[in-house]
Amino acid sequence: MPSFGERLDAAFDAFGHVCLGIDAHAHLLAEWGLPASADGARAFGLRAVDAAVGVVGIVKPQIAFYERHGSAGYAALEDVIRAARSAGLVVIADVKRGDIGSTIDAYGEAWLTPGSPLEVDAMTLVAYHGVGSISGPIELARANGKGVFVLAATSNVEAYPLQSAMLQTGAHHRLSVAAGIVAEVDAINGGAGLGSVGVVIGATVGFADYGIDPGLLASTPILAPGFGEQGAVLSRLPQLYGPASANVVANLGRSVLKAGPAGVRGALEEQVDELSRALTV
Amino acid sequence: MPSFGERLDAAFDAFGHVCLGIDAHAHLLAEWGLPASADGARAFGLRAVDAAVGVVGIVKPQIAFYERHGSAGYAALEDVIRAARSAGLVVIADVKRGDIGSTIDAYGEAWLTPGSPLEVDAMTLVAYHGVGSISGPIELARANGKGVFVLAATSNVEAYPLQSAMLQTGAHHRLSVAAGIVAEVDAINGGAGLGSVGVVIGATVGFADYGIDPGLLASTPILAPGFGEQGAVLSRLPQLYGPASANVVANLGRSVLKAGPAGVRGALEEQVDELSRALTV
Repeated sequence: MPSFGERLDAAFDAFGHVCLGIDAHAHLLAEWGLPASADGARAFGLRAVDAAVGVVGIVKPQIAFYERHGSAGYAALEDVIRAARSAGLVVIADVKRGDIGSTIDAYGEAWLTPGSPLEVDAMTLVAYHGVGSISGPIELARANGKGVFVLAATSNVEAYPLQSAMLQTGAHHRLSVAAGIVAEVDAINGGAGLGSVGVVIGATVGFADYGIDPGLLASTPILAPGFGEQGAVLSRLPQLYGPASANVVANLGRSVLKAGPAGVRGALEEQVDELSRALTV
Repeated sequence: MPSFGERLDAAFDAFGHVCLGIDAHAHLLAEWGLPASADGARAFGLRAVDAAVGVVGIVKPQIAFYERHGSAGYAALEDVIRAARSAGLVVIADVKRGDIGSTIDAYGEAWLTPGSPLEVDAMTLVAYHGVGSISGPIELARANGKGVFVLAATSNVEAYPLQSAMLQTGAHHRLSVAAGIVAEVDAINGGAGLGSVGVVIGATVGFADYGIDPGLLASTPILAPGFGEQGAVLSRLPQLYGPASANVVANLGRSVLKAGPAGVRGALEEQVDELSRALTV
């Protein structure tokens, strides 16, 4: 069984580094002529998957916009995930789960167990309870050829005080919270090829502001929000991520989805080309 | 419309400070003679609600154990929530959601919008993206007589390095991450009676270890995990939380649920009596 890191590498080779964020915002549903309902979110997600197939290798459904519609929304989400995985897309569930003990294990089982209704290829995690608290889903992921992405430095400005706070104790004291997470994940991945435990580092983030050492990202996949509507420019990805650029999953959501159901595939193709050119310069 | 803080106060007056954690662990389902399925989790939750009615005023379903079963699990959860709210219980959804912008707003809408399928009275939030990032659900909560509980200092040991990290910038620099969240929440509540924005501070936590000022908790509800199986002793709540004890929601899950479907109500009554005696000494 290939590892998640190996599958991600294969997706990079085949389609490049762009990921389509399936963000079923109420205002996008309206622009696409769809109802603000679970059925609308299902149609939106299935259409987005169609647009992604053959253009990108990775999609990232944003679970909040399905949860908004309760169990009916989750049923729609299951259909969208199934369609994406059947088409061979790598699916990252953006759920940002974090908890302890048997609770975080249950979250891991929900998203990373083969055959479970919500089975995806990777999920996002938040380690506010410490990286040690999420060892259950990390182990489950590795056992099943799945992956996780742990929030490190996010793309929003309100995050800076907390994520730049300085650790006073533990193995990574004197590092920032974000840099400490990067270091802990690096130790878990262990350095042989692209690992299966990723981090989230926003494209709006200056590594130096958090004291993040790019050398510790050599084996770590990086999920990168912040391009497009949040202000970061895709063609500058190599400057933003430096030597770690080869590991970046560049998420694009609203900036391409706003092209509408007829235009989204073309908009996505343009962005894939733009990033491909930037990375081969 | 009464605020969430007012409703929580009324629940304290009527039933005391114990909250039943509805934790549909696989091993508890087995002990209760229920299948490890959405139907099993539904039956477990409905039975737990029955046991709570008339004994405690507050229940806290742990969403992970419903999400484990996908959309069918969420349908079961909706039934459990509906039964609890119909019985007049204050329902806190333990979801620990955290994100930014329209995404966190959608999470807030999912759980705090009157009439939504998953409508509860309060939800737990994680502010890894900064307290500013969760202003959407906080505002939505207050507009609808709902509440939130923001993770501050959790009950697990792996959490200490991150939650005790020292803020280097912002309004609360030189405070720990956990103490900074307590201070930000205090400022939001503003001090007139029990507010609607709570924090999570585990019963295993020493306030001094995080530099948390109990004086800043005078208007803040405190959701307290860590009693029972995690090691904290309910009768010591007044010593643990000091002057903030009157605001504490003391969660009990496995330690009473393990009494089985026939015994859980009695086990819960015993704990309510024990805490009541401790608080009136």
